[in-house]
Amino acid sequence: MAGNSFGNVFSITTFGESHGKAIGVVIDGCPPNIDIDEEFIQSELDKRKPGQSKITTQRKESDIIQILSGTFEGKSTGTPIAIVIPNEDQRSKDYSHIADKYRPSHADYTYQQKYGVRDYRGGGRSSARETAARVAAGAIAKLFLRTKGIEIFSHVSAVGRLESPNLDTANLAQLLEIRESNIVRCADPATANEMIALIDQVRKDGDTIGGKISTIVRGVPVGLGDPVFDKLHADLGKAMLSINAVHGFEYGSGFSGSEMRGSEHNDIFVKDGDTVRTRTNFSGGIQGGISNGMDITFRTAFKPVATIMRDQETLNVSGDHTTISGKGRHDPCVVSRAVIIVEAMTALVLADHFLRNNAYVDEK
Amino acid sequence: MAGNSFGNVFSITTFGESHGKAIGVVIDGCPPNIDIDEEFIQSELDKRKPGQSKITTQRKESDIIQILSGTFEGKSTGTPIAIVIPNEDQRSKDYSHIADKYRPSHADYTYQQKYGVRDYRGGGRSSARETAARVAAGAIAKLFLRTKGIEIFSHVSAVGRLESPNLDTANLAQLLEIRESNIVRCADPATANEMIALIDQVRKDGDTIGGKISTIVRGVPVGLGDPVFDKLHADLGKAMLSINAVHGFEYGSGFSGSEMRGSEHNDIFVKDGDTVRTRTNFSGGIQGGISNGMDITFRTAFKPVATIMRDQETLNVSGDHTTISGKGRHDPCVVSRAVIIVEAMTALVLADHFLRNNAYVDEK
Amino acid sequence: MAGNSFGNVFSITTFGESHGKAIGVVIDGCPPNIDIDEEFIQSELDKRKPGQSKITTQRKESDIIQILSGTFEGKSTGTPIAIVIPNEDQRSKDYSHIADKYRPSHADYTYQQKYGVRDYRGGGRSSARETAARVAAGAIAKLFLRTKGIEIFSHVSAVGRLESPNLDTANLAQLLEIRESNIVRCADPATANEMIALIDQVRKDGDTIGGKISTIVRGVPVGLGDPVFDKLHADLGKAMLSINAVHGFEYGSGFSGSEMRGSEHNDIFVKDGDTVRTRTNFSGGIQGGISNGMDITFRTAFKPVATIMRDQETLNVSGDHTTISGKGRHDPCVVSRAVIIVEAMTALVLADHFLRNNAYVDEK
Amino acid sequence: MAGNSFGNVFSITTFGESHGKAIGVVIDGCPPNIDIDEEFIQSELDKRKPGQSKITTQRKESDIIQILSGTFEGKSTGTPIAIVIPNEDQRSKDYSHIADKYRPSHADYTYQQKYGVRDYRGGGRSSARETAARVAAGAIAKLFLRTKGIEIFSHVSAVGRLESPNLDTANLAQLLEIRESNIVRCADPATANEMIALIDQVRKDGDTIGGKISTIVRGVPVGLGDPVFDKLHADLGKAMLSINAVHGFEYGSGFSGSEMRGSEHNDIFVKDGDTVRTRTNFSGGIQGGISNGMDITFRTAFKPVATIMRDQETLNVSGDHTTISGKGRHDPCVVSRAVIIVEAMTALVLADHFLRNNAYVDEK
Repeated sequence: MAGNSFGNVFSITTFGESHGKAIGVVIDGCPPNIDIDEEFIQSELDKRKPGQSKITTQRKESDIIQILSGTFEGKSTGTPIAIVIPNEDQRSKDYSHIADKYRPSHADYTYQQKYGVRDYRGGGRSSARETAARVAAGAIAKLFLRTKGIEIFSHVSAVGRLESPNLDTANLAQLLEIRESNIVRCADPATANEMIALIDQVRKDGDTIGGKISTIVRGVPVGLGDPVFDKLHADLGKAMLSINAVHGFEYGSGFSGSEMRGSEHNDIFVKDGDTVRTRTNFSGGIQGGISNGMDITFRTAFKPVATIMRDQETLNVSGDHTTISGKGRHDPCVVSRAVIIVEAMTALVLADHFLRNNAYVDEK
Repeated sequence: MAGNSFGNVFSITTFGESHGKAIGVVIDGCPPNIDIDEEFIQSELDKRKPGQSKITTQRKESDIIQILSGTFEGKSTGTPIAIVIPNEDQRSKDYSHIADKYRPSHADYTYQQKYGVRDYRGGGRSSARETAARVAAGAIAKLFLRTKGIEIFSHVSAVGRLESPNLDTANLAQLLEIRESNIVRCADPATANEMIALIDQVRKDGDTIGGKISTIVRGVPVGLGDPVFDKLHADLGKAMLSINAVHGFEYGSGFSGSEMRGSEHNDIFVKDGDTVRTRTNFSGGIQGGISNGMDITFRTAFKPVATIMRDQETLNVSGDHTTISGKGRHDPCVVSRAVIIVEAMTALVLADHFLRNNAYVDEK
Repeated sequence: MAGNSFGNVFSITTFGESHGKAIGVVIDGCPPNIDIDEEFIQSELDKRKPGQSKITTQRKESDIIQILSGTFEGKSTGTPIAIVIPNEDQRSKDYSHIADKYRPSHADYTYQQKYGVRDYRGGGRSSARETAARVAAGAIAKLFLRTKGIEIFSHVSAVGRLESPNLDTANLAQLLEIRESNIVRCADPATANEMIALIDQVRKDGDTIGGKISTIVRGVPVGLGDPVFDKLHADLGKAMLSINAVHGFEYGSGFSGSEMRGSEHNDIFVKDGDTVRTRTNFSGGIQGGISNGMDITFRTAFKPVATIMRDQETLNVSGDHTTISGKGRHDPCVVSRAVIIVEAMTALVLADHFLRNNAYVDEK
Repeated sequence: MAGNSFGNVFSITTFGESHGKAIGVVIDGCPPNIDIDEEFIQSELDKRKPGQSKITTQRKESDIIQILSGTFEGKSTGTPIAIVIPNEDQRSKDYSHIADKYRPSHADYTYQQKYGVRDYRGGGRSSARETAARVAAGAIAKLFLRTKGIEIFSHVSAVGRLESPNLDTANLAQLLEIRESNIVRCADPATANEMIALIDQVRKDGDTIGGKISTIVRGVPVGLGDPVFDKLHADLGKAMLSINAVHGFEYGSGFSGSEMRGSEHNDIFVKDGDTVRTRTNFSGGIQGGISNGMDITFRTAFKPVATIMRDQETLNVSGDHTTISGKGRHDPCVVSRAVIIVEAMTALVLADHFLRNNAYVDEK
């Protein structure tokens, strides 16, 4: 109930602060007999890790995973899988200038008020470093979903006001390849170049900028998601909104759908061979909270990173006005690394609802 | 786990279908000694009920609540409060034409596939009728929050592309009065008139239209919300996305925040007498997932209602192409009734996190 | 978290006090397409209801169930099944003599201290009346388990020091018949007669007496129960200990097993045709917390009912010493009615773990 | 839901197998600002660890804890506390003779059937090694409870049929000292000597023997525990029954209470200065599932350890009859080490219910 766990059947609990010994995750409820491909898990971590390109923070962390339990001879055993990722680059001195000052739009103030204590060397649990644990867990969820033919694809669809055009999504594997060929992780190469230039300029300004990530999930069977409160899109929305810096979530037609008329928006059912499909997909693959077999589509909005390389007014812990300087290493734009976090959280929601639905499958 | 419960400490479980005997809710974890003002609860239901104006469905339901348990001499006792709302206007024959056809963009198809059985007389649990139970529970959450000085205000801020201008939000009670003075529940009277005209036109077209609802929560103490997964805005987002027809959620700066730079977006802390405030409120009253004492602000986007008064192509349960006619009673635009559902879900999230936070208050 | 719910996948929430309008239960997670045989459910309630014989309380309650939701054309739909049981015989005046006195070994004092308020007309939620809701839910769990070939049998194996001899348990249906042929619900007719005489004597003394209930569950597939905390016997134990007046639980060899040596106690695996069995069953059908296919066996101990027909010293709500008289209607021995509650809770645990296990069945 | 977590507000998740890299635990919901005394935690582990005396298994594990997160400058921060305990003495070759045989009364068979895979080198998660993680978590719960004046005391009250006489429990600290002065951990020195001699004889016989542990919790405020399902004794019972080898639980008068009459069993309320007490304590400090301020008392029964140093018949994984030899290191009687596990689980239940109750304390 302290909010460090996510999921019901495929459930994870993360732990660790940015300046402690390690961060990690316990994955409980992973089915047995899944191939636990450590190289794949590590490659996912590598996509999230800091220092991978000029447009990400230069903080150095190799983010090497250690699997402590839950596997035997390369397979999951159905028991909890614990993964630890040691913190290497703690460099606590970098943070001494903020020990008694509340960084604007960070969680310093609210944590101090809530708990009466905090590790003033960094963001503690509110640091995006916590998301490395989610990526490790998400990688295992992906390995499970792969056995069911479910694919997840996210990419950076906007940086600031710069938006990617609509993609031809027929071949997700190909899009993934394009995405990974550029450092901003946008699957449209021309837009990617513009985004990189924009982020580079923002970085030189000592500033940061927000962006958006678009996601497609393909191969989801009909029937995932539960009615009423645990609608599939409600759980996806919570998952995305739980990622640092996310300020908005929309699925299917999203906010623009609220400007449409029913006669335009309704997705007409059609028969495609033996498969039921809908002619359009404003429903984003989910109707009444339950997957309908079409692509699940959603978009996640990230605010600009709060740490900027400029002087800012603020208060110190005694409540006096003061100035805080921008120092240290930071991301000018978080979305290129966040792509993999979005995919991880998506995988966790899907794996959980897949297993939840299993409970009743025989009774249908 | 079947998704009919919401909340951890202040927790609700709803039950009932649109065409069964009754709907209802069990509220577990309401603190003892709260005045349970039945008239207030009923007045909340009255704001949601169908048939209240020309721009809502003409289905007739008096939605009279019956409290079966959990109160004694007008006060809560700390035990579960069960509320039942009998279904009156079942008129099952209205629905016979849809028994074997999947209504486009409804949950008929996904429910049938998930469960292998459904009450073909209506939407069952996917009917918005279920939300009456949420409103009853939300009213009790509001009665609790009132004792803590927490106010919740929602209004219709957009119908289709018609948007309300920004409001002066200094006096929420006054805005509430304005909102209740018009049938569309927009707190800007001029926009309200335009919205009503638009909805009326849409209704005459046999069509429906989407809209948006904006919410402000005032008086929230610093410290509500939990780090990592159960961030206050993540739980608010899930709550909103669990409401029928919602396709998007944003808080604070929301989607537009993703277009901003950090230097514009950061909320500077200032001292206001003894109170810590922020000069701007792009954070929407929540930092690191925890309330910071400022107004909590968010916006919820609703797609157009799927039931339209027109013929539509679809499939029947045998998988054959067919036509479905628009019949019966429906809402041309759901937002004027949904305002009260949004407030109810907001109250449930706040009450839950208030009590969750209580668990640690002495230890701070 | 307020403790009125039980179960994870097959989950119930009960509500209602002894002197309110009604008690009831919401069953969430019952699989769809189960025949909901209302007559069977009512017959289970009839076995628990007061006033059924001279050795039970004479309080009159017909305990007629009303199913409000979750069924369609006689079958479950996978949505929450709400059942309400109106309170008829409230006779509040009977309880006026206890309004300001704490009944010894009742929950009056602890409830008052915990909540600062209570319905002084009776036990409120601590009244055994709440268990009628459990029996209704348990009946539905039994209907589900029946489709899986799982049988549950409980009977009164002790009243005071009077113990039933070991039974030949080859035919549970026959034992059930014998049990139902006597009012104390012991499956050994000779002991039953002695028990009835003993209880009758205790009743005439204005006193009460404790007893024990023994349970056998047959037909459980191998694999139910989860390792570590949610061991099948741990969940059964919690279920039994949550029943009013229960002070002890043991499974398999139980307390007497703690006096044995490993060489006597170990259950040797043997092949019985294609089936794996154990030669003895000191494990009570559960090894490592997981069912092994043998009969699950356990025993539940009930203290004597606290309401006696004698004067007792006590304190009143002001903390002064006073005397409380024994008045009203009470059970001299609760076990003959509790048999059906034990079976109901057993069914709920089994149904829950059956569905929990389903989640992984395909992955084995 | 996979059963590796325990508790609601003060919640733990354990991980790790006997023959993996490490075992450990994540403690979520520990209040902030608690002194995390690592020496105390380690000293608790030392009481549970193997090899500490001639009557325990000679398997060598130093069981050194590593705290990875959740503390800062010696205090808890309110964030998850992760503790890892590396496995040192894996000696896998010891177990090769059991790779394809089901050990009688172990979990080998049920795990294989449930998961279709298991680490055949040992008990995996069903190994009592998992309980080291519980002891670490329980130590932190004890540190929290200490700040509230709550003491927990357990000792070995029976080995086989050898029972400790009733103790004078006025001074629990003194009893603890006596308990720790002998290797069997019985607080009656004379009985302790007899128990040690008995266990030694059993060990020489290549056999094992069961026993019982008695527990007292003192200083619990009135009001802990929740009505209906989460009664304090129901959660204690589940906690105890989740410990390896436990076959029975009773609280207060327990099984013997079922042989008593109400007039003997009722605990009469009396005033002791300003404090409300009961003259007797057959209720074991809990009435209606809620603590009444008296000592909480319960007893836990352990079966004899299944691993014996003798040849036994069994089946192999192909279903053929075979013989399994007793080899390796084992505990002839588990209770002297289990004392500390019982205390740990007790502390976890109490800490959880303390915080659960906090949520409502202001509303009383």
